[in-house]
Amino acid sequence: MANETITMTSVDAAAMMAEWTDRARSSLAPMIKSSHDARQNALRKAAQLIRDNAATILAENSRDLANAEARNMAEAMVGRLMLNPARIDAMAAGLEDIADLPDPLGRELDRWQRPNGLDIARVSTPLGVIGVIYESRPNVTVDAAGLAIKSGNPVILRGGSDSFYTSSCLARLVQDGLKGAGLPVHAVQLLNNTDRALVGAMLTAVGGIDVIIPRGGRSLVERVQHEARVPVFAHLEGICHLYIDAGADPEKAVAIAVNAKMRRVEICGALETLLVDRAVADTLLPVIGDALTTAGCSLRADAEARAILPDAAMATEADWTTEYLAPILSVAVVDGVGGAIDHINRYSSSHTESIVTENTDTAQRFLDEVDSAIVMVNTSTQFADGGEFGMGAEIGIATGRLHARGPVGAAQLTSFKYMVRGNGQTRA
Amino acid sequence: MANETITMTSVDAAAMMAEWTDRARSSLAPMIKSSHDARQNALRKAAQLIRDNAATILAENSRDLANAEARNMAEAMVGRLMLNPARIDAMAAGLEDIADLPDPLGRELDRWQRPNGLDIARVSTPLGVIGVIYESRPNVTVDAAGLAIKSGNPVILRGGSDSFYTSSCLARLVQDGLKGAGLPVHAVQLLNNTDRALVGAMLTAVGGIDVIIPRGGRSLVERVQHEARVPVFAHLEGICHLYIDAGADPEKAVAIAVNAKMRRVEICGALETLLVDRAVADTLLPVIGDALTTAGCSLRADAEARAILPDAAMATEADWTTEYLAPILSVAVVDGVGGAIDHINRYSSSHTESIVTENTDTAQRFLDEVDSAIVMVNTSTQFADGGEFGMGAEIGIATGRLHARGPVGAAQLTSFKYMVRGNGQTRA
Repeated sequence: MANETITMTSVDAAAMMAEWTDRARSSLAPMIKSSHDARQNALRKAAQLIRDNAATILAENSRDLANAEARNMAEAMVGRLMLNPARIDAMAAGLEDIADLPDPLGRELDRWQRPNGLDIARVSTPLGVIGVIYESRPNVTVDAAGLAIKSGNPVILRGGSDSFYTSSCLARLVQDGLKGAGLPVHAVQLLNNTDRALVGAMLTAVGGIDVIIPRGGRSLVERVQHEARVPVFAHLEGICHLYIDAGADPEKAVAIAVNAKMRRVEICGALETLLVDRAVADTLLPVIGDALTTAGCSLRADAEARAILPDAAMATEADWTTEYLAPILSVAVVDGVGGAIDHINRYSSSHTESIVTENTDTAQRFLDEVDSAIVMVNTSTQFADGGEFGMGAEIGIATGRLHARGPVGAAQLTSFKYMVRGNGQTRA
Repeated sequence: MANETITMTSVDAAAMMAEWTDRARSSLAPMIKSSHDARQNALRKAAQLIRDNAATILAENSRDLANAEARNMAEAMVGRLMLNPARIDAMAAGLEDIADLPDPLGRELDRWQRPNGLDIARVSTPLGVIGVIYESRPNVTVDAAGLAIKSGNPVILRGGSDSFYTSSCLARLVQDGLKGAGLPVHAVQLLNNTDRALVGAMLTAVGGIDVIIPRGGRSLVERVQHEARVPVFAHLEGICHLYIDAGADPEKAVAIAVNAKMRRVEICGALETLLVDRAVADTLLPVIGDALTTAGCSLRADAEARAILPDAAMATEADWTTEYLAPILSVAVVDGVGGAIDHINRYSSSHTESIVTENTDTAQRFLDEVDSAIVMVNTSTQFADGGEFGMGAEIGIATGRLHARGPVGAAQLTSFKYMVRGNGQTRA
């Protein structure tokens, strides 16, 4: 967001943000009342409008790309910003996938009767007004708006200034979809002003915004977590672990280790530390190390692992808490599943950890005692993803303990209320 | 908390609080691992120790009462501080009730399979370290500790200084119960220092405390909500509404109105505003008004209601947002259930609202569209209580939309994690 400036005072920004949150809040009651049909209709209409207006979207994207070129934007960022017909179609299809998911609202989460005859049900409701702060990725505009509509939550989007024209065009098309379905257009709003003071105003809009979801790199998430006065669903980093137990199937161990680390090294579910049971380190570590090295991974090992993998670099204490997001892996030998659990609960960022073992008791102990949002047996940490979980899409992954944890999809963007049905009961 | 002082700097307080939160956090792993048997055992042992040490508890309570007398504490506060054998037995029985509840941990909240064979379960876990800030009510020490033990959450208790000796004695007995059950004694800690700077340190202990629960009057809750940097489960006030629909059974309407307002006027579930459907105002309002007046309630009515209840005072705009906690009730005539919903969603504190009607469509519309934590049909708002909901006990009532809403019992003090079971799946 290199081009952003602060010209507004925080007082002006708060006053302007109040107008945005007022419009969002007045959209909440109609969204609470809305039928699933209407919300599905809005999503499908928005998808169709995005397909029908592909040329306009590409033209707006060209404006952003021209600005990006003029500012010598890094190639990786240009790659995320640039749209083409296939990417536009994927955004539309994503909205249709969200439309097809079951309604997350009005679900009876629990229901019971009291001895006095009162019938109590806990029923899912919208969460409230959501603020999404993200970098210059146009698809986040569409994904976040889609999940918000699905779950009945008005959303205020604050995208990176580098994708301003593209995201504004996409947001308008989604608003047209809402309008076509008879839902309030202000259920989706994209800030039309990229002054950074407005980000501060979003983060402190207590009473106006119910939860903030940052989508972006570590520096964005750190700023949001530091400054926010409203609750945040986020993960700062994914320091994911794979533990190879004495009871591991060696073939699975190799395949899972290579996939978890190397499939894509830059995502939050990528493996960062491999732990190997001392009982099988001599036999398995050379094979796994070879496979990883052959796949292009550098290894940083503790003293015991290095005795087995002499070509590995020496790991330092910092390696156990480093999210490389690169083809680098730290490796340690541990004392069985207990040692693995201790290491993980000490160093992990509580995102995703996996064990490879054929011993179901050991697997269950790992599942029970590892204190992370996602714990896995005999599979790759790269499955830590809302789409892979069957949630259709995710607005992010949360490592906090409150409300949402793990992939945050439409169902995780709900709250609940109690419906109590009586026949005249009064309290003694 | 008249006797409290601030002698510590905020830096000193934060350093001291870090020692408390470190002990709490190191108790988390053993609590996560603990069996329900062990937690039940701790609760039952604590109950027995409280019964066996009633004389000691009364002696410590006398020290607090002597201090209270020396400071001319208000009678109502002395009443809440004073223990007797029956109250001590009730605290012990409360712990046994909590022990008897089902285990809130390790519950499979959801489970599904993916096309690739991955099995995904969402399983309840402890929430983390809880901070409870409360006034001089010794029973809160025991209730809060009991619910925290049940749900596997280490708790840091900060009670009012006026109950310091009593609460310290009770906390020690609960810790002895934990010890007897082989659980970490620091899973329950009561601050042994009443410096108010430590309250500030609790409220800002990000990373040390996961959630703060204030138990007390409006000024305490306001301070907590204003200063807290960690999440808060709380309600500021309960501006509860009862709406009498044209389809109401008149007898139920009268009985519920009188019970909701007058059973106990000082609790958060007490009725503060009565709304009556214009279609039945002429016939029902005189009867309900009479019953309330006879029960000792003063009425403050809008112009239309006052035309029917000429003895009522004139309500002002402020009456619609006032939590009287007294035998006073505001009354308005509204245009059917739609008018009632609009009034409630505008003025309510989102705590508890009820409708009286025999029309199930109208009832369902009220349940669906009123945006409060608890919505009721044909029953009294005074049932808004964890015990009455069958939760065994409550640590408070939350009106926020995130995580916990309504009565907060042991099950609401949990988080969850995903357990993913595979057989070697790697991601394409």
